[in-house]
Amino acid sequence: MTEQKATNITWHKPLVTREEREKKNRYKGVVIWITGLPSSGKSTLAHEVERLLFERGCNSYVLDGDNIRHGLNKDLGFSPEDRNENIRRIGEVAHLFADAGVIAFTAFISPYREDRDRARSLNEPGRFIEVFCKCSPGECEQRDPKGLWAKARKGELKEFTGISAPYEDPPEPEITVETDKYNLEECAGQIMRYLEEKGIIPAAAVK
Amino acid sequence: MTEQKATNITWHKPLVTREEREKKNRYKGVVIWITGLPSSGKSTLAHEVERLLFERGCNSYVLDGDNIRHGLNKDLGFSPEDRNENIRRIGEVAHLFADAGVIAFTAFISPYREDRDRARSLNEPGRFIEVFCKCSPGECEQRDPKGLWAKARKGELKEFTGISAPYEDPPEPEITVETDKYNLEECAGQIMRYLEEKGIIPAAAVK
Repeated sequence: MTEQKATNITWHKPLVTREEREKKNRYKGVVIWITGLPSSGKSTLAHEVERLLFERGCNSYVLDGDNIRHGLNKDLGFSPEDRNENIRRIGEVAHLFADAGVIAFTAFISPYREDRDRARSLNEPGRFIEVFCKCSPGECEQRDPKGLWAKARKGELKEFTGISAPYEDPPEPEITVETDKYNLEECAGQIMRYLEEKGIIPAAAVK
Repeated sequence: MTEQKATNITWHKPLVTREEREKKNRYKGVVIWITGLPSSGKSTLAHEVERLLFERGCNSYVLDGDNIRHGLNKDLGFSPEDRNENIRRIGEVAHLFADAGVIAFTAFISPYREDRDRARSLNEPGRFIEVFCKCSPGECEQRDPKGLWAKARKGELKEFTGISAPYEDPPEPEITVETDKYNLEECAGQIMRYLEEKGIIPAAAVK
């Protein structure tokens, strides 16, 4: 655990409460934590659901390698300690977004249970939705849109999750999407239905 | 500068563009960077403007010691290196919020020009609004709501900005609010007018 260093900090109540925000917005700020092997479809899925939410009038935002590794976490590599700190910071930022009333997606491999559970612990019950992007390693390796599995096979990438680094399946994710059995539209729909059923977003208007 | 460590990252276009978000929201995501001495009124001002924006239908969020020092940056203390990293991370997170279409306030002393300029550089021109919370050290010390100036005078706080650590005034802030001359309502109104004039938020409806 990271130790609390600063001690001369006090808390005060913000003038706009979360309840007020959500009443105005008509949807809730939550963290949708998508985890899975490289090339299992995490980022694509997140952006697809973001699009559907946008059309439903809900503001969401996707945190993924694109906007985190080049910015906030550009000082971090892929050692176990750096991966740990990477996920710790992402968990904190996602929590801030949810607190701000945004539906925050994270799309990172996040291979360790302990790291994901720590991210979960920052949020109230029901505010952290773990989505397991389940896809066989064989299928992930075949897709390989960024050529990472191929590089790892050649030994050019060390500590590559699925080949030379472990991935710990989530034991009890809120949602499991099987991206090697269903298409993108079906998997995205599964997440949308969950959000509706839990009252996180309003139900779609009947056409 | 922090070096870029991760190299096997590619960029891809998000499916919801910033333009789309802002067209729907009818306001723009920006960073409002409030800087000034301890007890100059940064956080109070940020929350006051947040309230006014909320009533105008604009979503904003305040990053300050309360939600950053206990979370994302709880591994950092007050050494020059840690202060530097503190502000670097805050700059990155504020930029993410603005990218998500939120009006992001930061309310940190942020005493060094270089650190503030680096935070600015992450954003497109016009998307970073530096607000100098100008207040005489004497007035700040008299207010001292958290008793920090008093502690620093007793030597209980080291590297305290205004006493034992420097504060570099912003040479060209977008806005200067003189919190020792005008009241909270007036200072908040000054920021609201700026945001209206620059087309960042819609003008208030005539009553």
